[in-house]
Amino acid sequence: MNKKFSHLNAAGGARMVNVGHKPVQRRRAIATGRLICAPATIRALKKKALPKGDVMAVAQVAGIQAAKRTGELVPLCHPLALSHIALSFRIRLSAIDILCTVETHAQTGVEMEALVGASVAALTLYDMCKAVDKKMRIENIRVIEKIKE
Amino acid sequence: MNKKFSHLNAAGGARMVNVGHKPVQRRRAIATGRLICAPATIRALKKKALPKGDVMAVAQVAGIQAAKRTGELVPLCHPLALSHIALSFRIRLSAIDILCTVETHAQTGVEMEALVGASVAALTLYDMCKAVDKKMRIENIRVIEKIKE
Amino acid sequence: MNKKFSHLNAAGGARMVNVGHKPVQRRRAIATGRLICAPATIRALKKKALPKGDVMAVAQVAGIQAAKRTGELVPLCHPLALSHIALSFRIRLSAIDILCTVETHAQTGVEMEALVGASVAALTLYDMCKAVDKKMRIENIRVIEKIKE
Amino acid sequence: MNKKFSHLNAAGGARMVNVGHKPVQRRRAIATGRLICAPATIRALKKKALPKGDVMAVAQVAGIQAAKRTGELVPLCHPLALSHIALSFRIRLSAIDILCTVETHAQTGVEMEALVGASVAALTLYDMCKAVDKKMRIENIRVIEKIKE
Amino acid sequence: MNKKFSHLNAAGGARMVNVGHKPVQRRRAIATGRLICAPATIRALKKKALPKGDVMAVAQVAGIQAAKRTGELVPLCHPLALSHIALSFRIRLSAIDILCTVETHAQTGVEMEALVGASVAALTLYDMCKAVDKKMRIENIRVIEKIKE
Amino acid sequence: MNKKFSHLNAAGGARMVNVGHKPVQRRRAIATGRLICAPATIRALKKKALPKGDVMAVAQVAGIQAAKRTGELVPLCHPLALSHIALSFRIRLSAIDILCTVETHAQTGVEMEALVGASVAALTLYDMCKAVDKKMRIENIRVIEKIKE
Repeated sequence: MNKKFSHLNAAGGARMVNVGHKPVQRRRAIATGRLICAPATIRALKKKALPKGDVMAVAQVAGIQAAKRTGELVPLCHPLALSHIALSFRIRLSAIDILCTVETHAQTGVEMEALVGASVAALTLYDMCKAVDKKMRIENIRVIEKIKE
Repeated sequence: MNKKFSHLNAAGGARMVNVGHKPVQRRRAIATGRLICAPATIRALKKKALPKGDVMAVAQVAGIQAAKRTGELVPLCHPLALSHIALSFRIRLSAIDILCTVETHAQTGVEMEALVGASVAALTLYDMCKAVDKKMRIENIRVIEKIKE
Repeated sequence: MNKKFSHLNAAGGARMVNVGHKPVQRRRAIATGRLICAPATIRALKKKALPKGDVMAVAQVAGIQAAKRTGELVPLCHPLALSHIALSFRIRLSAIDILCTVETHAQTGVEMEALVGASVAALTLYDMCKAVDKKMRIENIRVIEKIKE
Repeated sequence: MNKKFSHLNAAGGARMVNVGHKPVQRRRAIATGRLICAPATIRALKKKALPKGDVMAVAQVAGIQAAKRTGELVPLCHPLALSHIALSFRIRLSAIDILCTVETHAQTGVEMEALVGASVAALTLYDMCKAVDKKMRIENIRVIEKIKE
Repeated sequence: MNKKFSHLNAAGGARMVNVGHKPVQRRRAIATGRLICAPATIRALKKKALPKGDVMAVAQVAGIQAAKRTGELVPLCHPLALSHIALSFRIRLSAIDILCTVETHAQTGVEMEALVGASVAALTLYDMCKAVDKKMRIENIRVIEKIKE
Repeated sequence: MNKKFSHLNAAGGARMVNVGHKPVQRRRAIATGRLICAPATIRALKKKALPKGDVMAVAQVAGIQAAKRTGELVPLCHPLALSHIALSFRIRLSAIDILCTVETHAQTGVEMEALVGASVAALTLYDMCKAVDKKMRIENIRVIEKIKE
């Protein structure tokens, strides 16, 4: 374990790491997350909301907008111009899976943007279902792919 | 299951629910979350960063600032004036537990604010440790207390 | 015309008018707007997008989120805690009508919030249709109701 | 009508379109809008406010600041670094015309930025005149030029 | 010196102090600041810009908008609904004095809002004059009045 | 004095200057500021807070986050993607010195970003110490280095 904590300077203070010397490359990251809820919530969601797509559409928009603001939310992230953001969902028996893909052409990667997008989409689903389900939780927010070309 | 989805109107469209008729009450919510990481990450964190408190302090600030902006992140949440926000952490062998407490004196509750604070603190810890640990994940974001007086 | 410009002080400088002496009242405002587009755009919208509700849902979310941020966009508006925001749409042969309703319990009215919500919903519809229609325009952004109780 | 709705993916969900493959080009867009008001409002504006330039200056600043935040307001817009924004006005007998010019050097155009700048400048003028004129409306928000080099 | 640091909890961590028990009162704060510049800058400003009021108007708007966002900028400040904000200026031979007044009806004071308003107005003046004066500095940002009723 | 005010157009109106023709260069700026406080405040800060690093860490984060948002705070600044931000402090007998370094690879310089970072860090220190010291002031906010390569 001799890799260093890149956000800490010699005196231990926080800083936004200098990426000025890194090459501009096409970079992509995909993150996932899962909202665990009751089967009855999923059934209600399917019957009432999914035919109109609204709950999913609101969560999609929320995830996209949050990913764009990652640099405001996560203090030591660089502000980045993103070239692509997409959120998709898979409805399970007692859960909703969230997948967030982000791309940029920049000097640093976008895994934090993908994680923020997935997290805020999950929080938005939580918000829209909480009137019918008091015991939800969000699980397994993680990066599943990170590439640069 | 005859409770209704409070964010959906008759036609299924999204709206910010009308809380104008609800009483102004003191309300509190507590949410938790957990960042799972390698034991070596925790050891490195303790040796290098915790003596200065910086990693935790950055995550605390990030969680507090995000909780204040919940109404911007979660589309159907009401913008609220919060009277108190606190973030605390417990370091485990291979995880960091996050606890976020939020209070208000308002017409609607603050569980989303507490969930957002815990989530963004976890994401900030992730960001600050990702140079040394590529396999972290965030688990168990949930509300553990919600009261009004 | 002896009413005064409430945002201008004695020297003509801009200020946010003092509403500290005004009573806290329940206030509501409704604003409308219209996106004029080609009939073919409406037909395409109905065939491809409306069954899923997505275009409308995205515009709804955008209008709601923008209304909440009116104090950031219109410099001399007061930041307000809103108790209700709703956006609805009516599809016409060659136009989409937008209706935005906002309520608060505050010392000042919310017509600017309703106008901002309607405007940003219209701009979002424009953005989502501009790939198929280059000649759209937004018309008739105005307040149709403003009450206090 | 076989052009596709670029913001909708195969399943009809919203996404921020991928512009990663498009060339970085110098791009400019100009949008206009009009605030219709009473002749007495224009006369009052000229007598009281225009000599100091304040009403126009506030609207200029509001339009410039809003154009920079287009990616936050219109959900599926890309965040862009803008190289130039200018707002200008023409005072008519019973209207104020607004012209907003935006330039960038990017992979996607800036007509939404120009439309947002013109719209928010118009809303700001509305806000500053609404104490003396209750019947204003905003008309004819549209793009009049869009080029890339 | 037995007053405590109100933002630090028992373990030294940052938190947003709990003001839930404090009475809602009318509160006002006034802060000042000064931009020191060359006499030639003041003369140029008077000749070119002041007749149109633009430089001052832009700084006024910037100060007002920043004061409203104090809770976003200063991490441990509470988000507050402000009832009044005003910025005024006095032109001196080699300086511009800034005065920012803020009022609220809340559970906590607004000196940080007044300080933020004065600071950002000074920074905006700096930005607008920096093309003609490379040696400016900002001095004496402080609170001159803080009252509650 | 024949240099022009770059933010004013021919008619004296405000605009964001066109930097589209300028070369993309690596640019760095360093700004400083000073919070003047009582010696007892410094002693209390050292005894209670500095061992944990929290006060400084909160101010560091606040300065970094504000520098990233310069384009939102200072109306005629361009939004920029920053490649590096660092805040450091020096504790004196009756003052805290703040140093903010910012780098970018862009068409325009970053002295405003450095000034905003230093100012907001100073304001955050003020906020965290104001419970124990009512007579602080912020002095000497200025640029000490500005280079391009």
